[in-house]
Amino acid sequence: MNKVYDVLIIGGGIIGHSISFFLNKCGVHTVVVDKQASGNKATQAAAGMLGVHTENEKTGAYHKFCEKSRDLYGGLHKELREITSIDIELSKFGMAEVAVHPDEKKRLHSKKMSFPYLTWEEGQSLRERIPALSENALGALFMQEDGHVEPRQVCEALKRAALYYGGDVLEDQAVIGFKKKGDSFTVNMEHSTVSAEHVVVASGADSGRWFKDTGLCNPIVPTKGECFSIKMREKFFNEALFFRDFYVVPKADGRCIVGATSKAGDQSTDTSAGGLSDLMNRVFSHFPEWREAAFLNFWSGVRPGTEDGVPVIGEHPSISKLYFATGHYRNGILLAPATGQLLKNMITKKKIDPSIQALFSANRLVERGESTYEYSS
Amino acid sequence: MNKVYDVLIIGGGIIGHSISFFLNKCGVHTVVVDKQASGNKATQAAAGMLGVHTENEKTGAYHKFCEKSRDLYGGLHKELREITSIDIELSKFGMAEVAVHPDEKKRLHSKKMSFPYLTWEEGQSLRERIPALSENALGALFMQEDGHVEPRQVCEALKRAALYYGGDVLEDQAVIGFKKKGDSFTVNMEHSTVSAEHVVVASGADSGRWFKDTGLCNPIVPTKGECFSIKMREKFFNEALFFRDFYVVPKADGRCIVGATSKAGDQSTDTSAGGLSDLMNRVFSHFPEWREAAFLNFWSGVRPGTEDGVPVIGEHPSISKLYFATGHYRNGILLAPATGQLLKNMITKKKIDPSIQALFSANRLVERGESTYEYSS
Amino acid sequence: MNKVYDVLIIGGGIIGHSISFFLNKCGVHTVVVDKQASGNKATQAAAGMLGVHTENEKTGAYHKFCEKSRDLYGGLHKELREITSIDIELSKFGMAEVAVHPDEKKRLHSKKMSFPYLTWEEGQSLRERIPALSENALGALFMQEDGHVEPRQVCEALKRAALYYGGDVLEDQAVIGFKKKGDSFTVNMEHSTVSAEHVVVASGADSGRWFKDTGLCNPIVPTKGECFSIKMREKFFNEALFFRDFYVVPKADGRCIVGATSKAGDQSTDTSAGGLSDLMNRVFSHFPEWREAAFLNFWSGVRPGTEDGVPVIGEHPSISKLYFATGHYRNGILLAPATGQLLKNMITKKKIDPSIQALFSANRLVERGESTYEYSS
Amino acid sequence: MNKVYDVLIIGGGIIGHSISFFLNKCGVHTVVVDKQASGNKATQAAAGMLGVHTENEKTGAYHKFCEKSRDLYGGLHKELREITSIDIELSKFGMAEVAVHPDEKKRLHSKKMSFPYLTWEEGQSLRERIPALSENALGALFMQEDGHVEPRQVCEALKRAALYYGGDVLEDQAVIGFKKKGDSFTVNMEHSTVSAEHVVVASGADSGRWFKDTGLCNPIVPTKGECFSIKMREKFFNEALFFRDFYVVPKADGRCIVGATSKAGDQSTDTSAGGLSDLMNRVFSHFPEWREAAFLNFWSGVRPGTEDGVPVIGEHPSISKLYFATGHYRNGILLAPATGQLLKNMITKKKIDPSIQALFSANRLVERGESTYEYSS
Repeated sequence: MNKVYDVLIIGGGIIGHSISFFLNKCGVHTVVVDKQASGNKATQAAAGMLGVHTENEKTGAYHKFCEKSRDLYGGLHKELREITSIDIELSKFGMAEVAVHPDEKKRLHSKKMSFPYLTWEEGQSLRERIPALSENALGALFMQEDGHVEPRQVCEALKRAALYYGGDVLEDQAVIGFKKKGDSFTVNMEHSTVSAEHVVVASGADSGRWFKDTGLCNPIVPTKGECFSIKMREKFFNEALFFRDFYVVPKADGRCIVGATSKAGDQSTDTSAGGLSDLMNRVFSHFPEWREAAFLNFWSGVRPGTEDGVPVIGEHPSISKLYFATGHYRNGILLAPATGQLLKNMITKKKIDPSIQALFSANRLVERGESTYEYSS
Repeated sequence: MNKVYDVLIIGGGIIGHSISFFLNKCGVHTVVVDKQASGNKATQAAAGMLGVHTENEKTGAYHKFCEKSRDLYGGLHKELREITSIDIELSKFGMAEVAVHPDEKKRLHSKKMSFPYLTWEEGQSLRERIPALSENALGALFMQEDGHVEPRQVCEALKRAALYYGGDVLEDQAVIGFKKKGDSFTVNMEHSTVSAEHVVVASGADSGRWFKDTGLCNPIVPTKGECFSIKMREKFFNEALFFRDFYVVPKADGRCIVGATSKAGDQSTDTSAGGLSDLMNRVFSHFPEWREAAFLNFWSGVRPGTEDGVPVIGEHPSISKLYFATGHYRNGILLAPATGQLLKNMITKKKIDPSIQALFSANRLVERGESTYEYSS
Repeated sequence: MNKVYDVLIIGGGIIGHSISFFLNKCGVHTVVVDKQASGNKATQAAAGMLGVHTENEKTGAYHKFCEKSRDLYGGLHKELREITSIDIELSKFGMAEVAVHPDEKKRLHSKKMSFPYLTWEEGQSLRERIPALSENALGALFMQEDGHVEPRQVCEALKRAALYYGGDVLEDQAVIGFKKKGDSFTVNMEHSTVSAEHVVVASGADSGRWFKDTGLCNPIVPTKGECFSIKMREKFFNEALFFRDFYVVPKADGRCIVGATSKAGDQSTDTSAGGLSDLMNRVFSHFPEWREAAFLNFWSGVRPGTEDGVPVIGEHPSISKLYFATGHYRNGILLAPATGQLLKNMITKKKIDPSIQALFSANRLVERGESTYEYSS
Repeated sequence: MNKVYDVLIIGGGIIGHSISFFLNKCGVHTVVVDKQASGNKATQAAAGMLGVHTENEKTGAYHKFCEKSRDLYGGLHKELREITSIDIELSKFGMAEVAVHPDEKKRLHSKKMSFPYLTWEEGQSLRERIPALSENALGALFMQEDGHVEPRQVCEALKRAALYYGGDVLEDQAVIGFKKKGDSFTVNMEHSTVSAEHVVVASGADSGRWFKDTGLCNPIVPTKGECFSIKMREKFFNEALFFRDFYVVPKADGRCIVGATSKAGDQSTDTSAGGLSDLMNRVFSHFPEWREAAFLNFWSGVRPGTEDGVPVIGEHPSISKLYFATGHYRNGILLAPATGQLLKNMITKKKIDPSIQALFSANRLVERGESTYEYSS
């Protein structure tokens, strides 16, 4: 038993390190514990889109939270670069959601009603600008403010900035269990034991166990996503393009990231041949020329889906000072800054917007009947 | 200028090292020169099938040469293992050519007439034995004697065995040009110059230039092939399966190699996204379960096709002691032993079977009209 | 809760899979659970030496166990090849322990008294045979019967052979905890729960927790080892050479494995710059020519050392049907076959040699005073 | 024969692409030809230091050229980012040349006389600021304006920006030879032939052949350099540190690049075990704590040294419109911008500073006696 931390965070992905960054920056000292290296799971697999308007059809508390998080990236870009010299590669080129079917066009027009500042580009103009697009493309809704970042750089920069502000990191250490004794938690890891005033579960698709172990329903649905990348000789467009069942994100060096399958309940770490094949077939039907592109790489990640599609961010209903910040599904990169800030506000007892608090609350996971709760090991 | 070699071999693929092995073993000293590392081009990309009967529809000189080469592998397996400890992984499990269309079934039955020792297995029995096969499979012609080897191991073992017998290797050295002076050749390489009594061009898809530079028609058609591998949890069959437009080669560790596209005239070194996608679609139509398999790897290689589909193995029509051993298209692994032995016999003035000599002769490449030959640099 | 296994084995290294192989072969069905992929930890880092006589100075129960295990590899080589086609690369070239100091020469002569069948080779003869050796080499004790194997191939082959005999494997699944209910164990893993009649802890350097959780002293001292490999142009000797503070293992393809540092208490997974540098300096002082060799690769692994230097193989002193098979330090590859066979004999209630039983018994780990045992999660 | 280019550049390293960038930007169309992928040789191996004052002891034409080139990076940083979105990671943190011996201190004080704007930092202050430094450090000369860039990013960005301005690139194509016919050159490559008004040899350590083939003395001395990288937990200093026989370049993510050995005449592509070991021993004598750092990677590159230590940049003495831009040894990254601009000025007949022209002129390579020049293939 070495040290008493203010906060121990289980999970060294982008969410865990964002929480750690915001807390340490205001003097609350944390340790982030991960069973592997940081950013090694859903974070490394993500394309990094900040899809505020691809992930929302209309305004509301969730849209507001997304927008706030995206806007935090502007300041983070500069701040992280100054502290760590790492460039998170924030793109200013926007995103476009492409319609390839009249129904989608209709849906996008309705979305434009909700968000009048988005702009519609007709098919012909779009195809002239992006010649690789097939005749299928009927137009696109352009979201100037929604760009993308490089997720691994963000995670590494947040981690290093948190270290700079006094935080700590333990990697290659699985958390075996924790017990609350009086006012603090004793946390057993494979190779050591530490104490902490607060515990935050931010372990993404591996979070399920901690809900069950603390007497709650497990809302986590691990959902595998498979991606690949190709390399075109010349880069021909700058914005990320979002289709109904795939997206493409162009990178500065001519690579283009294509994602992603969505396999609920699959937490294996390999990339299935069939998943890859389906994704390729989809992409080539809309970008026939890309069949000539060089295939570069493929990978997969397991994203923390939830049963109701909403993250769980908040305190445990009955164990005080135990928090959850998980279940972001494919929006973990987008929501990392706002989630970090929200947890910081919760733990430091700042005032929280009630609609946000209600939306993400863990209270929806209380089971009826007798609890079998034993959160030790 | 350091040394006079008996034979300088341009190209350190499986063909070049096989020639080197057979020559050094009988006391003829060689140097193999390659612009990269050995076995880095078509050799590394090959699946290693010894498809005597998938590559021939009926008996004849070519079939005889294939059969002889395959049979040489039996002895090589032991000999190379003794000298170098390298196991070339000679499989004894045979190959099967599968019919998925009545026309193919007909063709295979006709092939069985030519080769009565092959055995026909009906669709139902085949599908029971290999449950991953779809209902499309109408039966297969089984070739017990045609197995496969691990091409990189063969190439490495031949190279090391040739070194053992006194041969030499120069890697990362491009040959710039050669000149015949009196009875021997002066060969300029990027970083040095050597002399040799004989020169053998065995540089596969890069051989074209040497035909042109010595006044011949260039028969070489570089032909890209793209492959991928998957991993099944359990290995369910042992023989290589050959279909009209792809093949699958199971490996001992559960990997399955799937090949190959065939793009004549394409000598780029990347793997095209479309080529991969086509190959996957073809495979999954006959092995639907394999969609669940883990995608492991992908690669490509450029094979030395020829315009008439026949390798060029023999002496230059007008420059004595200059030999070609190239143009093996996708049969380089199968034919490496017999090609090595044939070159050894040619250079050491042994008697050659006239039908073989005629079949592979470079005389077919003599252009009419004036030669512009200048084989210097 | 899916299924009741006869035996659940925690840890998919070479020890776990060997136990699984021997059990399934005689009809006892097992499941091997590993938090990562099989063979990913100490197994993959090992050089594969079967150093019966480098690991023993004199005869006794431990030497006998080592010798028996080495001899089991002879039959396994054939059996695993038949079932799985995998070649475990059993070398017949022996090992030699080299003296570079008069004291070591003395020690080796004394070892030869204990094992009269070993042969002594004087320095001059040794250096003529292995010209890369420096003048420091005073002679070597040659152990003809002690060769080496390829550890990853052994592990993979044992795993596949166990699958063939009906075993099961769960990878990427951490065991969280287990509870004994009546006659069987309920084992909680991250993503599922299974039941088993017996549990075997074979998780190497990660085993410590299971001793503590079940009320025993933790004997495990994780001990990092760092290695590197070089490539010589020509292979010049065949036997593994063992020095006081490093060893070299030549491979068929000209690679030479050099190992290993020994850092007790260090369980980090990186390779330290200083560890590598020390090892290089040591090797070059005895093989000065190797400074010219190409540096190929470096890696590390954490070996399960024990406080008294002896593995723990046997039943838990107070929890029946819970077994340990861990703490093999750097002898895991050598001892895997005999350990697998011993566990099989223990679980199937065969008669065990009492000296072996006593040597490895877990009874030495019973602490005085009150047990705080709670082996749940 | 497809097209007549204004300029064909042999060699797709940072020098070749810089020339291409400056030429295309002012409307002169080029094609860059490389036998491999761009930036694959000396460029990829470089640490990217802009060591104007580590590479010069006093003022003069060479120092002036270095300074100008470094200053060009300021504008390039912005321009390349705008055109290609690639960040060349220009560091503003400066460099420091460290004295570890009184003689070096003396030399550095004398250098400060030549460059009064450099600042001297005493040993104690230096060691307080960089605690990893040993007591050996007697002080350092600090060069605020000399930073570093990421060479691969620079090369890729120059290549893409040249493409943007209308340039062309042919990769995986060796140039076999060229002939001047009338006013233009016919250039034979492995797979095609093109024409160009001018030819520029920018093929680094592989340039030697083109001097010899065109009747000049070959000034190129290929000089291998070997490097490694380590990872510290926390980054503790920002400037590159230059010692007499090694240097260290810290990166934003905590990696530290350590280089480099210097092996004149060695053009092999492997990294020698002894070279690596020497470099490690040197570094650890000044940074003893770094022994604990994780060893990350190692690599080597062959730099184009010259016999007199000066690059060759200028027109062939007797073949008009044939230019050289090679022999930059370890200053290729530093000098790429000024070399590109100089070649652009030469080819477009702008006025050149006579001291620069004289310094780099190829006239010094004219051999006495009869020329055996034949620059064909």
